[in-house]
Amino acid sequence: MAGSRYEYVKKFELPDPLLLGTFLVLRIDGHAFHKLSEAHDFTKPNDERALQLMDHAARNVMNEFNDICLAFGESDEYSFLFRKSTTLYNRRQSKIITTVTSLFTSSYVYNWSKYLPDKELMYPPSFDGRIVMYPSPKEIRDYFAWRQADTHINNLYNTVFWALVLQGDESTTQAHATLRGTVSSTKHEMLHSRFSINYNSLPARFRKGSVLVREQVMPEKAVLLAPAAEGAASTPDVEGQGIPQPSTRKPPKKPKAQYTVELLHCDIIGDEFWDQRPYLLAE
Amino acid sequence: MAGSRYEYVKKFELPDPLLLGTFLVLRIDGHAFHKLSEAHDFTKPNDERALQLMDHAARNVMNEFNDICLAFGESDEYSFLFRKSTTLYNRRQSKIITTVTSLFTSSYVYNWSKYLPDKELMYPPSFDGRIVMYPSPKEIRDYFAWRQADTHINNLYNTVFWALVLQGDESTTQAHATLRGTVSSTKHEMLHSRFSINYNSLPARFRKGSVLVREQVMPEKAVLLAPAAEGAASTPDVEGQGIPQPSTRKPPKKPKAQYTVELLHCDIIGDEFWDQRPYLLAE
Amino acid sequence: MAGSRYEYVKKFELPDPLLLGTFLVLRIDGHAFHKLSEAHDFTKPNDERALQLMDHAARNVMNEFNDICLAFGESDEYSFLFRKSTTLYNRRQSKIITTVTSLFTSSYVYNWSKYLPDKELMYPPSFDGRIVMYPSPKEIRDYFAWRQADTHINNLYNTVFWALVLQGDESTTQAHATLRGTVSSTKHEMLHSRFSINYNSLPARFRKGSVLVREQVMPEKAVLLAPAAEGAASTPDVEGQGIPQPSTRKPPKKPKAQYTVELLHCDIIGDEFWDQRPYLLAE
Amino acid sequence: MAGSRYEYVKKFELPDPLLLGTFLVLRIDGHAFHKLSEAHDFTKPNDERALQLMDHAARNVMNEFNDICLAFGESDEYSFLFRKSTTLYNRRQSKIITTVTSLFTSSYVYNWSKYLPDKELMYPPSFDGRIVMYPSPKEIRDYFAWRQADTHINNLYNTVFWALVLQGDESTTQAHATLRGTVSSTKHEMLHSRFSINYNSLPARFRKGSVLVREQVMPEKAVLLAPAAEGAASTPDVEGQGIPQPSTRKPPKKPKAQYTVELLHCDIIGDEFWDQRPYLLAE
Repeated sequence: MAGSRYEYVKKFELPDPLLLGTFLVLRIDGHAFHKLSEAHDFTKPNDERALQLMDHAARNVMNEFNDICLAFGESDEYSFLFRKSTTLYNRRQSKIITTVTSLFTSSYVYNWSKYLPDKELMYPPSFDGRIVMYPSPKEIRDYFAWRQADTHINNLYNTVFWALVLQGDESTTQAHATLRGTVSSTKHEMLHSRFSINYNSLPARFRKGSVLVREQVMPEKAVLLAPAAEGAASTPDVEGQGIPQPSTRKPPKKPKAQYTVELLHCDIIGDEFWDQRPYLLAE
Repeated sequence: MAGSRYEYVKKFELPDPLLLGTFLVLRIDGHAFHKLSEAHDFTKPNDERALQLMDHAARNVMNEFNDICLAFGESDEYSFLFRKSTTLYNRRQSKIITTVTSLFTSSYVYNWSKYLPDKELMYPPSFDGRIVMYPSPKEIRDYFAWRQADTHINNLYNTVFWALVLQGDESTTQAHATLRGTVSSTKHEMLHSRFSINYNSLPARFRKGSVLVREQVMPEKAVLLAPAAEGAASTPDVEGQGIPQPSTRKPPKKPKAQYTVELLHCDIIGDEFWDQRPYLLAE
Repeated sequence: MAGSRYEYVKKFELPDPLLLGTFLVLRIDGHAFHKLSEAHDFTKPNDERALQLMDHAARNVMNEFNDICLAFGESDEYSFLFRKSTTLYNRRQSKIITTVTSLFTSSYVYNWSKYLPDKELMYPPSFDGRIVMYPSPKEIRDYFAWRQADTHINNLYNTVFWALVLQGDESTTQAHATLRGTVSSTKHEMLHSRFSINYNSLPARFRKGSVLVREQVMPEKAVLLAPAAEGAASTPDVEGQGIPQPSTRKPPKKPKAQYTVELLHCDIIGDEFWDQRPYLLAE
Repeated sequence: MAGSRYEYVKKFELPDPLLLGTFLVLRIDGHAFHKLSEAHDFTKPNDERALQLMDHAARNVMNEFNDICLAFGESDEYSFLFRKSTTLYNRRQSKIITTVTSLFTSSYVYNWSKYLPDKELMYPPSFDGRIVMYPSPKEIRDYFAWRQADTHINNLYNTVFWALVLQGDESTTQAHATLRGTVSSTKHEMLHSRFSINYNSLPARFRKGSVLVREQVMPEKAVLLAPAAEGAASTPDVEGQGIPQPSTRKPPKKPKAQYTVELLHCDIIGDEFWDQRPYLLAE
């Protein structure tokens, strides 16, 4: 049949396997989210519900891909860590990044109205995605430290900036000028003296970003948890309420490790988080 | 600041430019759409509204990316042709495939209720995407011929199969057995003699797939067309009604070439389609 | 056996196929040849015997790889053009570049004493190699034009430079200063007025570089062809002569096209060379 | 000048950096060395002088590239380990593999007559090369174990095979048949009972292959060693006699670590070799 005559064009596809034995970090970034936040009048400097929507989309991704053991989100971006042993889609780069980015996007649009019921989504938003391979645990630690340090820097800046604009009656141009060259301690002081804001008492979500981590739960605890179906959720998930995931579809003969994805807003730069979860970076 | 200490992790990102001077074909495929069509009770063998939704998402992609001059869709897949001269995102592969796949997905979910208002979307669907580079026009011709020949083969099979099941009271197993080894002419005959269906009078959309092509329009015609905003469309686009795209945002001083994206269901295996549009494969 | 327990390490090898349907250009460059030419007291500005040795090594490569149809050499570099249809080593990049670079290197060292019998090779010289893919004939034309234009620029400069140093008693620093900013016509004039050198009557090998082209010969003509001596080198071996290469190993039943590799020092920027050899860029 | 008009062809070069933070193993293999060994009548099953020539070429490579800390050779292949921190040629794959393969080849041809003075090299031999990235020390251990296990398997087979042929008067076909399906202990027994050969008393070079390792030497010892120039070596290097390499070109103000490349024929599958040299796999 005619098909076969043209089928040679498949041979132009090039393989794109990711190196074995490396941790994979997939980072998704919002495309033109400055415009999206303007168009939908997001709360400044942080729109909690929009951030919860991001967390929800990320959780969907983790529920679908068991080899993702950790994720970190801030603003319009989310980073996912795949175990170094993952063989998802034979580690084909294009397949992995497009499928994950697509599912994240889909979940974001699908769940928009649950989190922002009063704001109609005006047009379809999009994200881009990329994968970076890291050979060793140290680099993974430093990658996530890099993102959380970035969260801190950006949030401190934005918090003062919007205080200056919204409460201090400065124009955005003035506010940028006011902040130019200031160090961290000056910004803290400015917040405190001019706006009576104690930065450290702001919500941890804003200061630390969102950490989604796959935690092992004891079998006896696991059986008490009923799996929640996506479509059944009538209200946004309560924070930290993980949806348990059986590690096997068939009824287990003996108790097996079960996992739940927990949402945290904790420090991931120091050792504590990692020391408590050695399996995240296990060989 | 702490950020810089960790920033070295960026150096692990590897460049992934696509070779200059090649045509790029980006193909998007639905992930587990068999399940999606079951879950939402799509009409068999073709659900026209679901196909129109695919076309809508593809049109959104073409409206966003001017360097896509042609697209072809069938079933749950869509192929996009980028001009060989495109410099979109500096031809970075990951950036292009994730952004396009994300926008397509987003538009599919966003517009679902416009095309299938009676069926609530039960969960967020996803797509994967890949890019293939082709060095010459011949391979582009053959690529699209390959996809349209595939459309023909699949649609003929599915048409007879579902006639056997829905009208002929065969089980799906029986229907597959009935069709095993039959050639094209036998299937045509079977449709005609047992179900009084003249295959060639079925809708062209089902037999030929969907062709979205960026056509040049005369300036005097272009000014008559009012741009339609995405969010404003309350009903699905009428087929073939292209949304004109000004080639510049600022008011042009002299008439410039303007383009519109037309939806066709025509043959793209023969020469006629291509001979009429030499600019598609122009060097 | 123990071997199998460790064999998994093979799985870390990544595929590196070159895109089908593209012309391949492999360029070899001498490593630290400035030092090599100093150490072996090469004649300035051009050492004809050293250039002949380069040509010899390139010819060896073309005799070994039939899919190379053209090569161009100047100074310490050589570029090889593979037919776009080549399937050498399944187009694996590493395999192709290392094998060709190795054979070139090997032949260079092996034949050194034939061309430079009075100069003992003091240490093993080396080359690097790279491959560039080009999708269309135009780029191949321009690639070779780029290299030959480079030959011209460099040779003109070096010719005047060494005339200033060797005949004009300028130091190398002075000579560079004298030439700084001068255009081509000034250099020609300088050569003529100060050193009575008519640039255009210098050997074509220096001005045009070396072109090795696989030419089709008529069967009846082929048998008549006596090996043509490379540059009339009297001592160096019989190699350097166009060794006809049967396109098949088995005795042909009817006369088949036979090929010989010819060495030319002609213009390859203009159309004539290419018009006479349409098969070089044939689809 | 004309050059610039064509220079755009450089833009078709694609970057090919190797992932940071990975160990690099570069393996060189002889091309058609079965034919080479026949043509030059190499001693069977092992030609010690030909193996010494391989070692010499490998040592030349290690003297040139300080980031190679270990190499292992057997038969017509050699593997080189680069420190994971190497930034040689900005980790560009093509540049590294071609330069190293070229230098190895060059040294092999250059030094042929020193090791095989009674056998004229009949034509220029060639090698191919490839690079594999390994993320962790374990894989490096296993890579070298894989190669040495391979040495063992091949050498045992070849030793019996050639005993059967040269001493047992079997044809090569018979000898292969005799050995088909035999396990290791059977081969040992066969050697012993039929040819009075105790396999384990054969030269370690044949049984273990060649290990070239960059060893740190104490400063006081180092000053006693005079660097030997390549060209000055009138006879093949004595085994294990390392050529010391100063870690710096300028006279050091205080004693610095100096290195020498040692040739060993020891076990590298067990822990001892590695435990004694922790710097080989140091982070």
